[in-house]
Amino acid sequence: MNEFEIISRYFSKLSSKNHSALNLNDDVFFDKSKKLVVSVDTYVEGTHFINFRYPELVIKKILRSSISDLICKGVIPKYYFISGSGDKRSFSRKNLKIISKSLKKEQNKYSIFLGGGDTVYSKKLSFTITSVGFSKKIIYRNNAKLHDDIYVTDNLGDSFIGLQVLKKKISLNKDLSNYFIKKYFQPILQVKISKKLISFANTSIDISDGLIADLEKLINKQKLTYKLFLESIPISKNLNKLINLNITKKLTSVSEGDDYQILFTASPSKSRIISKTSKSLGIKISKIGKICAYNQKSEIINEKNKKIALKNKGYYHKF
Amino acid sequence: MNEFEIISRYFSKLSSKNHSALNLNDDVFFDKSKKLVVSVDTYVEGTHFINFRYPELVIKKILRSSISDLICKGVIPKYYFISGSGDKRSFSRKNLKIISKSLKKEQNKYSIFLGGGDTVYSKKLSFTITSVGFSKKIIYRNNAKLHDDIYVTDNLGDSFIGLQVLKKKISLNKDLSNYFIKKYFQPILQVKISKKLISFANTSIDISDGLIADLEKLINKQKLTYKLFLESIPISKNLNKLINLNITKKLTSVSEGDDYQILFTASPSKSRIISKTSKSLGIKISKIGKICAYNQKSEIINEKNKKIALKNKGYYHKF
Repeated sequence: MNEFEIISRYFSKLSSKNHSALNLNDDVFFDKSKKLVVSVDTYVEGTHFINFRYPELVIKKILRSSISDLICKGVIPKYYFISGSGDKRSFSRKNLKIISKSLKKEQNKYSIFLGGGDTVYSKKLSFTITSVGFSKKIIYRNNAKLHDDIYVTDNLGDSFIGLQVLKKKISLNKDLSNYFIKKYFQPILQVKISKKLISFANTSIDISDGLIADLEKLINKQKLTYKLFLESIPISKNLNKLINLNITKKLTSVSEGDDYQILFTASPSKSRIISKTSKSLGIKISKIGKICAYNQKSEIINEKNKKIALKNKGYYHKF
Repeated sequence: MNEFEIISRYFSKLSSKNHSALNLNDDVFFDKSKKLVVSVDTYVEGTHFINFRYPELVIKKILRSSISDLICKGVIPKYYFISGSGDKRSFSRKNLKIISKSLKKEQNKYSIFLGGGDTVYSKKLSFTITSVGFSKKIIYRNNAKLHDDIYVTDNLGDSFIGLQVLKKKISLNKDLSNYFIKKYFQPILQVKISKKLISFANTSIDISDGLIADLEKLINKQKLTYKLFLESIPISKNLNKLINLNITKKLTSVSEGDDYQILFTASPSKSRIISKTSKSLGIKISKIGKICAYNQKSEIINEKNKKIALKNKGYYHKF
């Protein structure tokens, strides 16, 4: 059973439909009457981050991953709670100082502050982050319309290469290594676009599990399919280099997640305002596909106009 | 370093004083402008609960422990988020069914619902619960006044005996065992008194670490001391039996925590309204001591009017 099955089978009935809250199929909780948006995520060493050798980077990464859930829904995060379980070594004075400093930097960068938290003793290191924001509206999941265009912000795939470098599965020169590792640990969150998003996006999600996996999650309760154009999926020049050198494949790299870019759909009539927004904010927004009718099959089309199959759709937390 | 030192040394500066939020020395986070109250707690197997042999009871216990943080501040909990880390055995289909059923029962009992959560794979079982409520006002910590009376709701100490029975450190007959184990797993939360509390309590806390430890926490930033009268501390008839049989000592039992009763201070002028509230709600509220001047020493007075010393002040999460 993966976590989606767990949620729908055992816990959906525990949420309330009377309080305008989202059902548990969404990534954030929304109390419309209170305008409150909450996201809760747990990060375990070995699963969500490799190890705690660089506490500063791990803390940055997981905090960004958490607030990304709000940002992609058009909500500006206001504060967060962090609860750490770990042993004396993980929470040594030196590490605590580093953690505190790292959080401070992120707070300044994203104008958020620490609401509270908890530190408990455990042999296994993990963090739970609760992010809170306020908004009258949010962009829901499963709200794509037939013939919507599919968009994504910035570039995808760099983060995956960074992880492969860290895992020593890919070896690159120092400059390239540093470039990709930085992309892995410090994904760029599209805060500026967040508030604009509500005016044109029908549905949205952040890419944490991989482009394909998250696109499928985005419309998993809808009778819709998608067509993606591989050529249109935006990647960095550096990633393009690796693809040309046959070090990685494009579809693989963008399907592995950890990008924290925003994936959304919008009516073709919004095409102009989206490219205007992209220019005015200086944020790359690429049209990468279409939402299609249910009687078609979801497909990915390569540069030769051929359908391609995907082996691994991305990351699912399995039990 | 215990968790209080960690919080004050490394994380206090990360919270905001501009947003009317409490500083991290308090048990809950309060955003006055949004009337939002949040409590985050992590519960680790082996530290906060013995094991997961009875998932139903563990889930009830930790959920009550979490919402108790709001209730003792005069805030009615509205929803909660639960994030579980564990292995396949802990989150087997059978256990998930039990967990879901147990949460459902608690939801009905306390009129709360599940806002969301996360399930992740980890070798070590732990849960993080975020509880949320809304209130214009809350009762702060460190707001006792000189000469305040000290009060506590219901009885203390039963939960500790239940834990000793579970750990096989005390052996009792079946009826008594069941009585104390139930008190350990299913503490009675004083929801009814919660909203009234704001009209008479100056400062409050729930007893999770033990009467003395929590009383000291309650006024740890104030230049005040306390005098407690051992005889006035309320205990059950069953606990009294064990004391008479020399199986446990009164001060020990009430100092070990897990009671989730409300400890508060109030001006002597509120004495009448408190006893009226107690009668009208049918909830026992006992006056157990006084808040005293800083030039005195905090002390506990026994039935023979003698000062007594305490070896173990309660439970601190140590690192």
